[in-house]
Amino acid sequence: MILKSHRRVVLVRRPPGEPAESDFRVEDVPVPEPVGREVLVRAIYLSLDPYMRGRMRDVKSYAPPVGLGEVMTGGIVGEVVKSGHPKFQPGDIVEERLGWQEYAISDGAELRKVDPSLAPISTANGVLGMTGLTAYYGLYEIGQPKAGETVVVSAASGAVGQVVGQLAKLMGCRAVGIAGGKRKCDLVTRDLGFDACIDYKAEADIDAALKAACPKGVDVYFDNVGGAISDAVFKNLNFFARVALCGSISQYNAAASELGPRLLGPFVGRRVRMQGFIVWDYAARATAAFNQMGEWVRAGKLKYREDIVEGIDKAPRAFIGMLRGENFGKAQVRLGRDPYLK
Amino acid sequence: MILKSHRRVVLVRRPPGEPAESDFRVEDVPVPEPVGREVLVRAIYLSLDPYMRGRMRDVKSYAPPVGLGEVMTGGIVGEVVKSGHPKFQPGDIVEERLGWQEYAISDGAELRKVDPSLAPISTANGVLGMTGLTAYYGLYEIGQPKAGETVVVSAASGAVGQVVGQLAKLMGCRAVGIAGGKRKCDLVTRDLGFDACIDYKAEADIDAALKAACPKGVDVYFDNVGGAISDAVFKNLNFFARVALCGSISQYNAAASELGPRLLGPFVGRRVRMQGFIVWDYAARATAAFNQMGEWVRAGKLKYREDIVEGIDKAPRAFIGMLRGENFGKAQVRLGRDPYLK
Repeated sequence: MILKSHRRVVLVRRPPGEPAESDFRVEDVPVPEPVGREVLVRAIYLSLDPYMRGRMRDVKSYAPPVGLGEVMTGGIVGEVVKSGHPKFQPGDIVEERLGWQEYAISDGAELRKVDPSLAPISTANGVLGMTGLTAYYGLYEIGQPKAGETVVVSAASGAVGQVVGQLAKLMGCRAVGIAGGKRKCDLVTRDLGFDACIDYKAEADIDAALKAACPKGVDVYFDNVGGAISDAVFKNLNFFARVALCGSISQYNAAASELGPRLLGPFVGRRVRMQGFIVWDYAARATAAFNQMGEWVRAGKLKYREDIVEGIDKAPRAFIGMLRGENFGKAQVRLGRDPYLK
Repeated sequence: MILKSHRRVVLVRRPPGEPAESDFRVEDVPVPEPVGREVLVRAIYLSLDPYMRGRMRDVKSYAPPVGLGEVMTGGIVGEVVKSGHPKFQPGDIVEERLGWQEYAISDGAELRKVDPSLAPISTANGVLGMTGLTAYYGLYEIGQPKAGETVVVSAASGAVGQVVGQLAKLMGCRAVGIAGGKRKCDLVTRDLGFDACIDYKAEADIDAALKAACPKGVDVYFDNVGGAISDAVFKNLNFFARVALCGSISQYNAAASELGPRLLGPFVGRRVRMQGFIVWDYAARATAAFNQMGEWVRAGKLKYREDIVEGIDKAPRAFIGMLRGENFGKAQVRLGRDPYLK
C-alpha cells in the first residue's frame, strides 16, 4: 500500500555549534509519482553518519551543503514500490543516498540492489554499505597494514571503527580500539575480537594507556575523531607509520578552529604518511569489497553492531546523539516496516 | 702541510630554547693519525643545516643526539691529506658527515668523491649535496608535481627551498616561494626564476597573499618551516594536494609544543596526503639525482646561492643566525683554504 503523503526531514537552520532538534523540521508532503524510467522507493532504514554535520554548513567542501528547506542528505535502504526502470522490480531491496524521507524517487543510476539473503538488509547501510567500504579501503589502501603490525582505530565501536579493527585482525595485525565507556570497550574486545580497547573517558592518561596497549608502538592509525585523542596516538606512531584520516568528529560541532599542539615536526623524522580520503574515491571498486566482506559476514568472521531507533521523527535526536557518541554501534533509523526482519 | 693541532666545535650544553654561542666550545686538539685503510680529510667547507638543532636535544629521533663534549655533527667538503684506502688519494675532494672540525678521519665507507670540475666544491654541501638531494626526492617522490600545477615552498631562499622551486619550474609547474624580507624574495624571483614570492615579514595577511599568488590553489606544498606560515598554506591546498614535510624550523627552538589550529579535519574531504621524509631514505638513489642536477647546474638551468662565513670559530654564531633566518642562501663555513676557489 502506498500512502498519499509521507514524512521527510528538512534542514531549517544552520547551527554554529551543536545541532538542536529545532534545526530540523519534520514535514508531511505528498508521495511523489515516478515518471518514465524512475523508481519509487519506500525507505526502510536511514543511515546516520558524522559526515552529515558537514553538509549542514554553508562552506565549500567535497560535496555541496544541504540547502535550507531541503531534505537532509543520507543513505537509505528501502524497497522498490513502483519502477519504470528495467533493472528494478517492485519488492527489490535497494540502497542509495535518497535523503531523510519515507519515500523517494530514484533515476536508477546510483541505485544499488541489495541481496536480502546475505544478511539483514540494514547492513547495506553499514558493514555491507558505505561505512564498511570506508573501513575497507581506508584501512587497506591508505593504512596498508602488514601482518604483525599494530593498528589503532578511534571511535572503535562506531560504524566504521568496528569494521576497521576486525579487518585489521583478519590481516594478522594487533587491533587496538579507542572508545568512550566500558560498554563500548567490552563490545569491541569481547564481541568483535579486538586485542585491546582504551576507554578514553576512564583513562586519565591516554598516552600511557596507548603505550601499555601498543608495546611495539603504532604502525597504522585509522582516525575517526581528531582532537586530543588523536594527539595522544600521534605521540606513539612508529617510524614509517600511516595515518588514514577518515573523520574528525570531535571537531564537527566547533564553531571556530580549535587549537591543539603542533604535530608535524615529529612527523618529518618519523616519516609519517597521513592521508585524507572519502569513500566515493573507491566507488568503482565497491563490488570487490562488498563481495569480500559479504563472505566474511556469512562466515561469521566479520561481525557488526547496529543501533536502530524507530520512526523518522526520531532521526534528528538520534543524529545529535550520534555526534555526542551516545549510539552503540552503527546508528540507523527504521523508517518503515522491514519485510525481512524476523 | 699538516698541522699538529686543529680546532673542532663540541656541544657543551643542551639549550631548552634558542642556542647561544656558550652552548658550544671551540677546542684545540691534536690532528688524528689515520691507521690502516683510514683516510685523513682536511675540512674545507662545513654545511650548517636546521636538522642539527634536533641533534642538540637528548630525545629519541631518527638519529642519536650529539653527546655533551662530543663534536657537533655536520657535513664536510674537504681534501684528502693521507689515505690508506685504495679508492682515495691525497688531493681528492670528498664529502662526508665528518663533524664541525678542521681535520677528520674517515673509514671511507661513506666518503663520496666530488668532481671539482663540475662546480665550486662547496656545492657538494648544497645543491649537489644533501640539500639538493632533499629537494629532489622530497619534491619529486613525495610532492609528485605535474606540469601546470602550483608548487609552494617555504624558506624559499634557503638551502633546500631554492632548489625545490627551480626543480618545480623545470617540471613545468608554477613555483611560489615564501621567504622573509624583500632581498630574499628578490633572489627567489629575479635570480632563481620562481613565479612569485611572498614576503611573510611584510604581508599582514599571508592567506590573502597566497590566494593572489596561487590563483588556482596549491597542489604541492614543500614545507621547511611549519607553524603559522604553513597554517596559511594548508588553507589553500587543493583537492588531492600533497605536502612534503621536510622540516619545521619555526618550531626547533621551542621548549614545549606550540599550539596551532587543528588542521586535519579539512584534510579528510580534500584528500590531502602529507608525508615526512629524511634524505637518507634516498641515499641509494643519490647518484641519479646528482647526475641530473649536475647536468642542470652545468647548463645554467639550476642556480644556487650560498652564504659562506670564514673560520670554524664563527660556526656557532652562523648556526644560530641560520635558525633565525639571517642567512642568505645555503649556510656554510669555510674552515680552510679552497684550492679550487678562483
